[in-house]
Amino acid sequence: MAKNPSDSLIVMTELVLPNDTNTFGNLMGGRLMYWMDIAAALSAQKHANLPVVTASVDNISFENPIKLGNSVHIEAKVTRAFNSSMEVHMVVHGEDLVNRYRYKSNEAYYTFVGLDPHGKPTSVPALDPVTEKELLLFEGALRRRQLRLILGGKMKPTDAAELRALFQM
Amino acid sequence: MAKNPSDSLIVMTELVLPNDTNTFGNLMGGRLMYWMDIAAALSAQKHANLPVVTASVDNISFENPIKLGNSVHIEAKVTRAFNSSMEVHMVVHGEDLVNRYRYKSNEAYYTFVGLDPHGKPTSVPALDPVTEKELLLFEGALRRRQLRLILGGKMKPTDAAELRALFQM
Amino acid sequence: MAKNPSDSLIVMTELVLPNDTNTFGNLMGGRLMYWMDIAAALSAQKHANLPVVTASVDNISFENPIKLGNSVHIEAKVTRAFNSSMEVHMVVHGEDLVNRYRYKSNEAYYTFVGLDPHGKPTSVPALDPVTEKELLLFEGALRRRQLRLILGGKMKPTDAAELRALFQM
Amino acid sequence: MAKNPSDSLIVMTELVLPNDTNTFGNLMGGRLMYWMDIAAALSAQKHANLPVVTASVDNISFENPIKLGNSVHIEAKVTRAFNSSMEVHMVVHGEDLVNRYRYKSNEAYYTFVGLDPHGKPTSVPALDPVTEKELLLFEGALRRRQLRLILGGKMKPTDAAELRALFQM
Amino acid sequence: MAKNPSDSLIVMTELVLPNDTNTFGNLMGGRLMYWMDIAAALSAQKHANLPVVTASVDNISFENPIKLGNSVHIEAKVTRAFNSSMEVHMVVHGEDLVNRYRYKSNEAYYTFVGLDPHGKPTSVPALDPVTEKELLLFEGALRRRQLRLILGGKMKPTDAAELRALFQM
Amino acid sequence: MAKNPSDSLIVMTELVLPNDTNTFGNLMGGRLMYWMDIAAALSAQKHANLPVVTASVDNISFENPIKLGNSVHIEAKVTRAFNSSMEVHMVVHGEDLVNRYRYKSNEAYYTFVGLDPHGKPTSVPALDPVTEKELLLFEGALRRRQLRLILGGKMKPTDAAELRALFQM
Repeated sequence: MAKNPSDSLIVMTELVLPNDTNTFGNLMGGRLMYWMDIAAALSAQKHANLPVVTASVDNISFENPIKLGNSVHIEAKVTRAFNSSMEVHMVVHGEDLVNRYRYKSNEAYYTFVGLDPHGKPTSVPALDPVTEKELLLFEGALRRRQLRLILGGKMKPTDAAELRALFQM
Repeated sequence: MAKNPSDSLIVMTELVLPNDTNTFGNLMGGRLMYWMDIAAALSAQKHANLPVVTASVDNISFENPIKLGNSVHIEAKVTRAFNSSMEVHMVVHGEDLVNRYRYKSNEAYYTFVGLDPHGKPTSVPALDPVTEKELLLFEGALRRRQLRLILGGKMKPTDAAELRALFQM
Repeated sequence: MAKNPSDSLIVMTELVLPNDTNTFGNLMGGRLMYWMDIAAALSAQKHANLPVVTASVDNISFENPIKLGNSVHIEAKVTRAFNSSMEVHMVVHGEDLVNRYRYKSNEAYYTFVGLDPHGKPTSVPALDPVTEKELLLFEGALRRRQLRLILGGKMKPTDAAELRALFQM
Repeated sequence: MAKNPSDSLIVMTELVLPNDTNTFGNLMGGRLMYWMDIAAALSAQKHANLPVVTASVDNISFENPIKLGNSVHIEAKVTRAFNSSMEVHMVVHGEDLVNRYRYKSNEAYYTFVGLDPHGKPTSVPALDPVTEKELLLFEGALRRRQLRLILGGKMKPTDAAELRALFQM
Repeated sequence: MAKNPSDSLIVMTELVLPNDTNTFGNLMGGRLMYWMDIAAALSAQKHANLPVVTASVDNISFENPIKLGNSVHIEAKVTRAFNSSMEVHMVVHGEDLVNRYRYKSNEAYYTFVGLDPHGKPTSVPALDPVTEKELLLFEGALRRRQLRLILGGKMKPTDAAELRALFQM
Repeated sequence: MAKNPSDSLIVMTELVLPNDTNTFGNLMGGRLMYWMDIAAALSAQKHANLPVVTASVDNISFENPIKLGNSVHIEAKVTRAFNSSMEVHMVVHGEDLVNRYRYKSNEAYYTFVGLDPHGKPTSVPALDPVTEKELLLFEGALRRRQLRLILGGKMKPTDAAELRALFQM
């Protein structure tokens, strides 16, 4: 019944066109987040075999700008499922195919909720991590979830056991 | 020299069209984050009088879906400036103008960096909060910044004094 | 029952992207009219609490071109209601946020018709002007309406009492 | 040196897609004005052999809505040239190709200015009408120009000789 | 009952905008094929008075690149009908309206199938060529159809009588 | 110096949105050819490490329509290089992620030319097929090239040795 992270792998490649860029000729953050939302939604849908909606987006830090004419490479995979929600992890690279220069742009976590035909949240299959990397992502998912709940005002910081460990209390 | 938050106010209104929606006829999260990125970038630009790039986006939780044909209302204002970076706060409402139903969709913080003509980070004016609400946002900005630095691997959790207070240590 | 102009205020901000511009890097008139149509339609919808369709657009003169990378600021308000139709007034400014240069681009009047669920025209609330400026717009609306009817072949110029006054007959 | 109206004929056909429509499934006025601006600009460019910018748009009345999936047919031709400006006349039809139903949607006049390489207005070739219909459009262009100047605050109504005739004074 | 090629003529004009171009400022092949698909679909729909879907696209060779800011001119006409399918021929020109330089970009054949209200293929009217050019296109259509069937694995090369003649056997 | 096909692999995933579909809710052929052009161009660029332009597109047959809300999966790889040109092979699948139904939509060959900084064709690396499937594609590339040259009027059918074999002469 449970699925593996690789079952939900989505690989997306896009080309940065003029309308996607700011005045410095770099991909705008908002355009990238739009593509990431579609890649992550397809990954969550592939895991749940249900329509999904974006529930939340974790902190994203944009490290290296992606240039006009470069390609954008997004890899998305579900890291963990919680009842009706799924966390999707993405790694984004930019690539200058002419100069063979590939660079990491950013990493992110989006959370989706699976919906029944009436648009109500419904349970999704569990996720079984396989590789060591997948296991780390699976374990971190609990901590990130607590942070989301705290930031969303739905959990008290003092109740977030896993997250408190991060602060070495 | 310092500016007030109201100096950077940007009000954006958009209409949800078919291509912006998922199969349930609700605005896709990625499309909203795209609009928010433009609203916030214009707000940061208005504060700094410099070109800006998106540096990071804080946790966003999508609470109420915005329906096809509804309008999207985004208000963006700078909350605090740090050397070359600025935090922008946004509140997003959806509105069904036919049925006079206005609802909050979500709230978010985007961070931008001001750039000189060579595309290098450069200092931006300080921000002086005026109202009580602006003061609260100003103060919280430090805590959110520590969280960003920790999540970006640039600060140790134990060094984040303001954030630790949140965990009542 | 009657509403005030401020009840229908819509503020829209857009960023001029490469695909919106002509070969001189200026916003194309057609793209601006597209945004204005959406801003004005939302304003009319806010007044009428009904779906609306564009009935006509008055003479628009494009005075100052808006440059690539500048922001576009549209303010729309209903000026007067006639049975099932509403006139919406818009003022459009361009703004170079980096150089703090804000300039008026143009002003315009769009007319909308409120529709019932079968798509048939239906009556909309009356409009009560409040400020002096709103009163002037309210009074001018009659003259502009006569001009629209004449230009649309639905009224004889000699029957347009208010408009004739303009020609000081 | 002078050119004929047929030298500047532009025929444009577009298909109405979901994102072009309002909630009734009809083409939005703003989207049509966008297409008309491009058709008219190409017509003016064809006449002047110069880059052009939209100077003004005359009153447009939207008579018959064009439905989703229908085709839009725009015919544009220059009616008259004045120093650096040209008036372009357009007729717009919608067509339901499945049910063989073709209907007139609206008619409009857009005015363009020819630009030199520095972006300054420059003189354009004269226009010689050939057919009777073209002669009528050519003559009416003077009256419409006076109306534009009055509405733009650049001419006193009492100085508009041709236009006053319309009011049978 | 049968129709002439001119009954299905569609003329489309588009302007090459920044987002349509590659890094050399030339129209991308994919964007042109998108426009051609719409022009050809409208032509087939005009012939059949039925909704249509693209069944196949013949070999297209892109000869002359169309530059940013140039106009694209597509003429589409049905060349022959076979039961439920129609072949549409298109000629594409680019035009630099400022420098009065018009050049052929490419020629192509798209095939469409007419559909009944349930989305099933249904018979379309026959086509009667009128001009000599139309007759040549009509005759060649049989040969091109054999090539399509062979390339689609639905006909053995040795059964393609007309096509074999091309190889002078 | 020579490269393998896997060096140029591009995987693209797209979501079919309302504006991509015809009145039956199926992906329009032209929109798919647009995405395929970008996927194939990136693959050719990855092989050549040069900017590339689309030279030609081979016969495409659209077998199974891809539905609104389904995902589109394109895999592109270079099959053979000829001086300055490269043939790219693509396989396109549609996938209904909710109902776990994956279906092949079509297969295609696009040809690209590598360009030097002045936009002139320049030589590209040779391609060495590795797997049996890649070898078959490599060998077929010669036959397809002859067909392209014949269809483009650049080779006489009787000179196309490999292609004649197809007709078993």
